[in-house]
Amino acid sequence: MKLGRLNHVGIAVPSIAVALETYKSLYGVSDDEITPTREMPEQGVKVAFVTIPNSQLELIEPLGDASPIHKFLEKNPAGGQHHVCFEVPDIYTARDAMRAKGAMIMGEPRIGAHGTLILFVHPKNSHGVLIELMETPKGSH
Amino acid sequence: MKLGRLNHVGIAVPSIAVALETYKSLYGVSDDEITPTREMPEQGVKVAFVTIPNSQLELIEPLGDASPIHKFLEKNPAGGQHHVCFEVPDIYTARDAMRAKGAMIMGEPRIGAHGTLILFVHPKNSHGVLIELMETPKGSH
Repeated sequence: MKLGRLNHVGIAVPSIAVALETYKSLYGVSDDEITPTREMPEQGVKVAFVTIPNSQLELIEPLGDASPIHKFLEKNPAGGQHHVCFEVPDIYTARDAMRAKGAMIMGEPRIGAHGTLILFVHPKNSHGVLIELMETPKGSH
Repeated sequence: MKLGRLNHVGIAVPSIAVALETYKSLYGVSDDEITPTREMPEQGVKVAFVTIPNSQLELIEPLGDASPIHKFLEKNPAGGQHHVCFEVPDIYTARDAMRAKGAMIMGEPRIGAHGTLILFVHPKNSHGVLIELMETPKGSH
């Protein structure tokens, strides 16, 4: 188990549409550097990615009453950094290695916003940081 | 003004030494991927960088009673994601462009942990995310 590329920084926001206006007007992000906003009902979120030269920002907005993002936004009403995502070659190998060292994996691996398997490691294992691991998309990099 | 490379994600921790043990034992970071821990008394922090293939994590520990990190750790005792740092070609050009658009720049540009000029943009301008801008180190990338 070894951390690979920093695939993205996950940022929770009350409104992706409003946040994208900020990234465009204040930080010079262009329309072709923004993915369409996608609904992921099974995860209770909407997401859009902002391309940065060497990585991405994932903007996350709650979707539905049961969204896990509501609690985060209650604590941080303006929004804030939610998680950091690193790539790994194989999600099951990473899961088993982490579990063998006593880490708490949250749920089973599932398909994430990039179409590859992801999992989340509990923040208590990483000094308060919620870490996502995702399989490197095939053919990328 | 346009966001450049994601230079690092800043992570506040109660103890850099303890956090580094976690990154080594759980996430496979090797000793040569960790910079020596440096004291930056004028900023009230100690910092160490963990190299990731395409970016870095900056671990930040409070230094001194007046450290700005104490307040963050009061709210997040285990630690957590503190800021995101993007590179820009020229810090004064970036500052002036941001100010012209109404952003609140926190203090004047100063030398950061990488030896180049940095500034911080108030989180209220970026939906709760504290954003650091730093001049790209000469000769890098």
